[in-house]
Amino acid sequence: MAAVDVEALKRGERRALAKAITLVESRLPAHRDAAQGLLESVLPATGNSVRVGITGVPGVGKSTFIEAFGLHLIGKGKRVAVLAVDPSSPLGGGSILGDKTRMEQLSRRDEAFIRPSPSEGTLGGVAQKTRETMLLCEAAGYDVILVETVGVGQSEYQVAAMVDFFMVLMLPGGGDELQGIKKGILELADALVINKADGASEELARQSRQHYVNAMGLLRHTTFWTPRVMTCSALKGLHIDAVWGMVVDYYLEAKKLGAFDARRARQYRDWMHQLVREMLLARLQAQPELKGLLPRLEADVEAQRTTPYNAARQIVELV
Amino acid sequence: MAAVDVEALKRGERRALAKAITLVESRLPAHRDAAQGLLESVLPATGNSVRVGITGVPGVGKSTFIEAFGLHLIGKGKRVAVLAVDPSSPLGGGSILGDKTRMEQLSRRDEAFIRPSPSEGTLGGVAQKTRETMLLCEAAGYDVILVETVGVGQSEYQVAAMVDFFMVLMLPGGGDELQGIKKGILELADALVINKADGASEELARQSRQHYVNAMGLLRHTTFWTPRVMTCSALKGLHIDAVWGMVVDYYLEAKKLGAFDARRARQYRDWMHQLVREMLLARLQAQPELKGLLPRLEADVEAQRTTPYNAARQIVELV
Repeated sequence: MAAVDVEALKRGERRALAKAITLVESRLPAHRDAAQGLLESVLPATGNSVRVGITGVPGVGKSTFIEAFGLHLIGKGKRVAVLAVDPSSPLGGGSILGDKTRMEQLSRRDEAFIRPSPSEGTLGGVAQKTRETMLLCEAAGYDVILVETVGVGQSEYQVAAMVDFFMVLMLPGGGDELQGIKKGILELADALVINKADGASEELARQSRQHYVNAMGLLRHTTFWTPRVMTCSALKGLHIDAVWGMVVDYYLEAKKLGAFDARRARQYRDWMHQLVREMLLARLQAQPELKGLLPRLEADVEAQRTTPYNAARQIVELV
Repeated sequence: MAAVDVEALKRGERRALAKAITLVESRLPAHRDAAQGLLESVLPATGNSVRVGITGVPGVGKSTFIEAFGLHLIGKGKRVAVLAVDPSSPLGGGSILGDKTRMEQLSRRDEAFIRPSPSEGTLGGVAQKTRETMLLCEAAGYDVILVETVGVGQSEYQVAAMVDFFMVLMLPGGGDELQGIKKGILELADALVINKADGASEELARQSRQHYVNAMGLLRHTTFWTPRVMTCSALKGLHIDAVWGMVVDYYLEAKKLGAFDARRARQYRDWMHQLVREMLLARLQAQPELKGLLPRLEADVEAQRTTPYNAARQIVELV
């Protein structure tokens, strides 16, 4: 893999950016070192974006929303990157998320950069790669970074931990109260956005909005921001401007209070500590003796032939 | 500290049991080794109990419930141990939970053993000590082990991960839908028990029960057991027998299907893996250089002067 042209990347050239991301996503140890060198060198040029996380169950209209939202932002003179965290994405086969055919109009625009979810991560998993890709996009001058997730496993938590603003898309009505959204996710949401609020569904969306406003009120919020509940129709282009206006409201208020920078600082610190834990485990897992020892100790522990403490001590002594 | 008399412990002598628990709770490294030796030697005598976790917000009547429940069990010929996980318990000052003055009648019974929450844990925290104490109580012949928690921090998750049956106490009505119970907890509950269902509150409790039955129906349950919602009054002694009957129903069904033993095996395995992670971190934290390095790297990462990956790598290289 030829070296990435850092200056071209900083000028926003797509080929350089795509190449840098490929380097960051590579699982070869040599590439990992090169990627870290690249990231260090572009770090001073990162951080100047608004990072917005978007989740919602399948069928909620995430692609349509992101396309409409992205085009709206481009209309306001922004450059927009769309990334994804999808741990279920098939190995080597690319991801459904971020697929350009889903966002046809947006993907044709020069001001947009759409990248599917990395198919596999090493340390830190898929989310680690997306975090690093986010930094590259910032260095390349993207003003708004949209990070999408389908909500498999821990992916919503991971996305919420890497963005400035976390948004959950919902459907009008939709039977049960939370539409399959994990309950812990609501405590992370800075906004619920009820999509498909058009035509015959508009009244239902209005009722749902009131329902969610009440439900959100039950959650404790410790920061300056009270999560908002909005309605929109990505398909009809209704209230997309209001959704962006809300993000801007949040941004200005959070910046003024220092909460914006504090949230990012905390995210970076937590990210570092998470990597420390994973590197320690990876070092243990690299011990060839573990492969024989672990199943034996697991069996002993499960059958109560030894205590978890004594078994754990034997494992840790391998390092 | 003199050696624990293992035979006396296995005969169920309270003094031997109390002494063994004190050894397990000690933070001295030499005691830790002795405690592990003791636990290994009693392991074959453990496991023959039903472990029931009990949580609920302050004011829900946990002490009254545990007293009534414990006395009911003694009436059925059982020996009952009451333990607690309370991470907020003041260092060295004993815990509010498990305090004998709260369960006056129960604490006077020979068939009951009440132990307050350990005031501090080392590896694995307070929960680790309670898990080990649970094994000692089993070796001493206790048939039912009640593990109580107030729900500070992660304590409900920890208790749910160490018991066979996890029960959340609720109040009749009580304003907002979940009465301050963390939403994730409901997904762990094998039962919701609405306490104080007596007198003028009985009808309200009945309504609450229906409400919670509906709410629980929204949660996915992957095992054979559909969580039940019951009402009782610990103060008046109403339906305490039905609550125990439910635990027995669960026990018989879970035993028959192998789910009981599978759950315990999984808990032991997870416990071991958790200890591995903590021991690895503890080894890192024991490095004297970390004290100077960590704040510097945290500051660098927060200010985006270095990547979390590079900072984490420097930290891990200390070990």
